[in-house]
Amino acid sequence: MSGRVVVLTGGVGGAKLVLGLTQIVPPESITAIVNTGDDFRHLGLAVSPDIDTLLYTLSGKGDAVKGWGRGGESWAFMEVLRSLGGEDWFQLGDGDLALHVLRSLLLAGGESLSAVTAAFAARWGLPSTILPMSDQPVATHVATDDGDLPFQRYFVEQRCAPSVRAIRFEGAEAASPAPGVLEALADPATRAILIAPSNPWLSVDPILAVPGIRAALAAARAPVVAVSPIVGGEAVKGPTAKLMRELGLDVTNAAIADHYAGIIDGLLVDERDGAEGLAVEHHVTDTLMHSLADRARVAREALALAERIGS
Amino acid sequence: MSGRVVVLTGGVGGAKLVLGLTQIVPPESITAIVNTGDDFRHLGLAVSPDIDTLLYTLSGKGDAVKGWGRGGESWAFMEVLRSLGGEDWFQLGDGDLALHVLRSLLLAGGESLSAVTAAFAARWGLPSTILPMSDQPVATHVATDDGDLPFQRYFVEQRCAPSVRAIRFEGAEAASPAPGVLEALADPATRAILIAPSNPWLSVDPILAVPGIRAALAAARAPVVAVSPIVGGEAVKGPTAKLMRELGLDVTNAAIADHYAGIIDGLLVDERDGAEGLAVEHHVTDTLMHSLADRARVAREALALAERIGS
Repeated sequence: MSGRVVVLTGGVGGAKLVLGLTQIVPPESITAIVNTGDDFRHLGLAVSPDIDTLLYTLSGKGDAVKGWGRGGESWAFMEVLRSLGGEDWFQLGDGDLALHVLRSLLLAGGESLSAVTAAFAARWGLPSTILPMSDQPVATHVATDDGDLPFQRYFVEQRCAPSVRAIRFEGAEAASPAPGVLEALADPATRAILIAPSNPWLSVDPILAVPGIRAALAAARAPVVAVSPIVGGEAVKGPTAKLMRELGLDVTNAAIADHYAGIIDGLLVDERDGAEGLAVEHHVTDTLMHSLADRARVAREALALAERIGS
Repeated sequence: MSGRVVVLTGGVGGAKLVLGLTQIVPPESITAIVNTGDDFRHLGLAVSPDIDTLLYTLSGKGDAVKGWGRGGESWAFMEVLRSLGGEDWFQLGDGDLALHVLRSLLLAGGESLSAVTAAFAARWGLPSTILPMSDQPVATHVATDDGDLPFQRYFVEQRCAPSVRAIRFEGAEAASPAPGVLEALADPATRAILIAPSNPWLSVDPILAVPGIRAALAAARAPVVAVSPIVGGEAVKGPTAKLMRELGLDVTNAAIADHYAGIIDGLLVDERDGAEGLAVEHHVTDTLMHSLADRARVAREALALAERIGS
């Protein structure tokens, strides 16, 4: 089976699935459409956490333990910044800074985020296509019991502690999909569209909030398969389960399927939860991705489900 | 003898003299007026090499061997920048970047270079006053046989190899002395104004090109004493001697005294050259500043010459 595979993804968990895909299909056939709702200006620099996690993970330069940032990173910048009284709640590694400084420079010179991302990927020899969801800024904001928080304040500074009431994506209405996004979704050569097991509300919804993307998914000829982020009634990592409870939802695959209703044709669920109450097509398997072999296996099962749906 | 000591200075050599001064007078009585003609935007960041050399040298955080930059610096940023195809002719250390990033952020927020510099100095506990010559940008450009070069392209990228025809200070006419500069020069409590053994054409002339500073020096009640950068018919370091020859000058203390005519009341010259042809008041000594003790001794001799002239 040949053809293009498109993945909608956030950072750490999603990057694992994309890395798994590179093990089982030609990497040049993969297009990742990446959440940029986490992007923000920090210390005047343009930081794109999820795009960078993809760049690091796919190039093998990433920190394999943390799942984000650069492997073997050093932290002299933060140390001196702290001595000067600069804001130190968001960690910027010494080597990692090169991406933010160069990206800021190129954006200021009029280049688009997608052009900058493609240039970085090319310099690092990545054969896969990494597309930001949009070249326009979209900023995820979380309304919490402690007030409105920009995403990184909620996620990094407050460690997701405040209770979430609502989430909004500032700028989304005025944004357009980045060049290549709609084309990839509609491409007749696309054999499957996957939604990574990223946080559906914080990492995938920003992508869906960009006008045109939701409709393109609904209209896509290729089967759309989501990998559920739920494992054993909890999220593998991050605030998904806590967030679902705060939003009044059960932490079940049925709630995930409901959330993606109208978009997905299938859901890959973990064997610890099973398929109870699931109307959508599904496949039950072990979705934990500890090793590279796990990642390849989950990617293969997601593609197999897509193939079954599409046939 | 008490009172304020003001020093006009460039980077490495000048910082040595200022450090020497801190050994022999109360550091809080020292005001350094620093060349900012070397300042430039690099990778979108505001870099102020001479101010930073003063900050590093006086705080003991500097690289004692190189005389500029941070001691124990790491270089991950440059390595990653290179991998992304970024310009790598100007070295930015990992910790050093914190100064440039934070300065850029504060300047973009409307703060002045002098306010930012004072804030950094305060955070590092420096009792001396470090003033940029101006809060407005002044950019040293070197007209060479290879064309017009911004200072850092000439100095760092081309390693001063091109033959110099003329030097100009872009923006100087429209610039004003930074707050505190003219006050320090005219302060009745100022007992001496020193000109550090920095390059007179490249490091001191930019300061003198800021409207009002030359006149303030000429009108100053305090004696003005320059430490000659010539030692044994050569410059101790950097392109001073080469530059003087290219400008058609003899590499002598007489040429230095001519250059500073109308400004200085005295010249401290090295024993290897002596005082031949010098009409200005002078003192002959060993002006090499290898050790901290040397720096204190040269500072003491310069102050002693000022005292002799002023009495």
